[in-house]
Amino acid sequence: MNKASRLFCPALVTPKNAVVKQTEQLSRSQKLLTELGLVKSGSNGTYQIMPMAQRSVDKMIDLVQRNMLLAGGQKITLPILTPTNLWKKTGRLDGDISEFYMVRDRSGKQFLMSPTHEEAVTAMLATTSPISYRQLPLRLYQIGPKFRDELKTRFGLMRAKEFLMKDMYSFDVSEETARETYSIVSAAYDRLFKQLEVPFVKVNAATGMMGGSVSHEYHYISPVGEDTLLQCSSCGFAGNSEVLDVKPGSPVSCPSCKGSDLKEVRGVEVAHTFLLGDKYSKPLGATFLNTSGKPQSLVMGCYGIGISRVIAAALEVLSSEQELHWPRLLAPYDVCLIGPKQGSKEQPAAEVIENELLLQVGELCGQQELLHDDRKELTIGKRLLEAKRLGHPLIIVVGAKAAHQGSPKLEVHLSKGEKLELDINEALKLIADYSQHKESLLKGIFPQDTQERISDSVGHQL
Amino acid sequence: MNKASRLFCPALVTPKNAVVKQTEQLSRSQKLLTELGLVKSGSNGTYQIMPMAQRSVDKMIDLVQRNMLLAGGQKITLPILTPTNLWKKTGRLDGDISEFYMVRDRSGKQFLMSPTHEEAVTAMLATTSPISYRQLPLRLYQIGPKFRDELKTRFGLMRAKEFLMKDMYSFDVSEETARETYSIVSAAYDRLFKQLEVPFVKVNAATGMMGGSVSHEYHYISPVGEDTLLQCSSCGFAGNSEVLDVKPGSPVSCPSCKGSDLKEVRGVEVAHTFLLGDKYSKPLGATFLNTSGKPQSLVMGCYGIGISRVIAAALEVLSSEQELHWPRLLAPYDVCLIGPKQGSKEQPAAEVIENELLLQVGELCGQQELLHDDRKELTIGKRLLEAKRLGHPLIIVVGAKAAHQGSPKLEVHLSKGEKLELDINEALKLIADYSQHKESLLKGIFPQDTQERISDSVGHQL
Repeated sequence: MNKASRLFCPALVTPKNAVVKQTEQLSRSQKLLTELGLVKSGSNGTYQIMPMAQRSVDKMIDLVQRNMLLAGGQKITLPILTPTNLWKKTGRLDGDISEFYMVRDRSGKQFLMSPTHEEAVTAMLATTSPISYRQLPLRLYQIGPKFRDELKTRFGLMRAKEFLMKDMYSFDVSEETARETYSIVSAAYDRLFKQLEVPFVKVNAATGMMGGSVSHEYHYISPVGEDTLLQCSSCGFAGNSEVLDVKPGSPVSCPSCKGSDLKEVRGVEVAHTFLLGDKYSKPLGATFLNTSGKPQSLVMGCYGIGISRVIAAALEVLSSEQELHWPRLLAPYDVCLIGPKQGSKEQPAAEVIENELLLQVGELCGQQELLHDDRKELTIGKRLLEAKRLGHPLIIVVGAKAAHQGSPKLEVHLSKGEKLELDINEALKLIADYSQHKESLLKGIFPQDTQERISDSVGHQL
Repeated sequence: MNKASRLFCPALVTPKNAVVKQTEQLSRSQKLLTELGLVKSGSNGTYQIMPMAQRSVDKMIDLVQRNMLLAGGQKITLPILTPTNLWKKTGRLDGDISEFYMVRDRSGKQFLMSPTHEEAVTAMLATTSPISYRQLPLRLYQIGPKFRDELKTRFGLMRAKEFLMKDMYSFDVSEETARETYSIVSAAYDRLFKQLEVPFVKVNAATGMMGGSVSHEYHYISPVGEDTLLQCSSCGFAGNSEVLDVKPGSPVSCPSCKGSDLKEVRGVEVAHTFLLGDKYSKPLGATFLNTSGKPQSLVMGCYGIGISRVIAAALEVLSSEQELHWPRLLAPYDVCLIGPKQGSKEQPAAEVIENELLLQVGELCGQQELLHDDRKELTIGKRLLEAKRLGHPLIIVVGAKAAHQGSPKLEVHLSKGEKLELDINEALKLIADYSQHKESLLKGIFPQDTQERISDSVGHQL
């Protein structure tokens, strides 16, 4: 069990009549994250993750790992420092390099603080003893910090200079098997985004500086998104306007149903998949031995998920101006239990119920999923307000009505303002159901209506 | 279950008469890790962690987190990029800065790729709204990469330029309560090192560039260690020669038992604890509000564990020239199951046993803890040799004797060369016992003899 009195959650207290200098662009969820003490702004464009948000990050990592395992992923760690000479070989230092952090070691050798690892992983494979076609496909992934010296950082964790990524790299014998790998990893991505229960759209994308032939993006729809997507109200189709080659002002019909209900929406890119071919394996000499024992270039794919960005963007989509709302699997805690106020007349009787609940709730949802707001020097109202702003999925108040002899009642607040008055067994049942639903989600079992809701919002691929 | 045929484990194959250019100093375990494909050398002084070693890293992280939780730790993430101006304030840029990686962003602002985070975490606390004495003590930790541009990298992961650390920072109201925190975190460290089952010594240490008043180091004893320790054969006392102020050649008596059996041994520092006082909080202005509501400097401690170094050093202590041996809780897999050779006459009957075992073993130790060596095109002998070199704690061979009608037998190889011939139930019992022992270790339950063995090797504190 976690105690609110011990939790480091450094809320921003701004004097009421202070003039706040707005140094960064904040979206509503980022504003709440900062004000409530879940995230702190470090130096320009970097962020410090505080304990409550860290729990969400760790849950996201766990969820990603479960799905990478299903996709046949093997976890590795590549150094953050990548020699720039590898990037020279692939031509990626020829264009605009203003977004790269570069550093020299004591011998003068230059390194990139890697924004991505195509070169590093390919060079690693090029220097192993020859891989046989029998060992392929190979799907390697890592989870770690990435660096991009953005001109404009925005919306906190959503576009930061230092951010957490999951990046997977796949290696196949041919374009055909690479496409199979692409479908398998894409299926794992689809599953992951369904588990997060935030409506998403998947669109064909431009391959850009990454290169390659096929690419898809996963987007959350939000006004703060930096991409323009076109979504068809009739058939659900969605595409990136970059790819659709839409001229501003000219009418377009839906490429899928030919209808004219295409609407512009803003998307936050939260994941991206690429079929890369031999763009990296050829210049870096990463080969395998084919069935005739001859070396042949590996056919690659790469697959990224912005761990910190998914959390930030999901919060932006789900939250209101006043309250955070979390994807169920990413909420820092499942349950927040608020005990009676110190010195109130209900305190002695309510505390008996409180202590019983602490044990039983902890057993049902797991001790680590229970936050006990034990700051009894504060009123219930003040603590409840904070708990609602933090967006705990289930808030249980053990107040005056819990002290009723015979029929003690608990106030249970669900996210989005729903409020119930339940007796103890009903409340425990609710918690058990919630934990059960989480378990099902983790196993990839979605209720029928979720499937429909999700498929509605998933765009056809071009 | 994991299949050896799919596992990416890029072994170094060196032609027999090749002259290998020795570009780095390798200890025996690091040589094995590299040859067997668990770790690959990246650019000078950086390392790539391959899937099998990554499993060990993830287990170490899990173990560290369990113990940090017991010590009241709250997990956070601080950026890798720390503005150098913070380090100027504490004076840590005044001395030798040749080991620091420094980088400038597009605006010219300079950052350190942090080798440690005292400045960053203290500055973070200095910029929160005032902390009350009621919220203290506070113990914040993180797990992430650290950077040090070493003049001499050595022994692979043991001294690398980029390495994985757990660093905790504690904040207290007074020197007295800071000492309490120090004992609590130290107790968690002692527990962790007992759980690893590698003999360790704990010695008083110099505070060095870190500053502060009290400091201890945890060492593994190994000829490749870079520190000189003095250990008393009579009473077990151990100290760092730096601290003991020993003059070369002059006889010393044991500070504890006054005996003359002090022997020099080499130690690998795997963890370090410091009581820092206000060395960082004062210059950076990190205060709390005391009982009179007045701001007062926080009293700090810091506590590091080299995640990647512990694994490397433990392997160095436990392994032989030919075979890796892992701490039980860090072995990549608990069980390796080797099936019959393709086309052998025992294959059909042995495969029946093999399939039954795959199910039952997976259930006993967990599917992820079972490595199935399914490369049936290779002889059992070749696969067994590799399994022994990789140091899997339990290797089960389903060979010719498993095909015996009526009384099938399995060959079970334990680490350090012990070999048993067991029937199926006996083998399953062995695996169940092994898993049970691991569970106890994780809970911090040590058998009586382990406690004695450990206390023998733990030096008294000066």
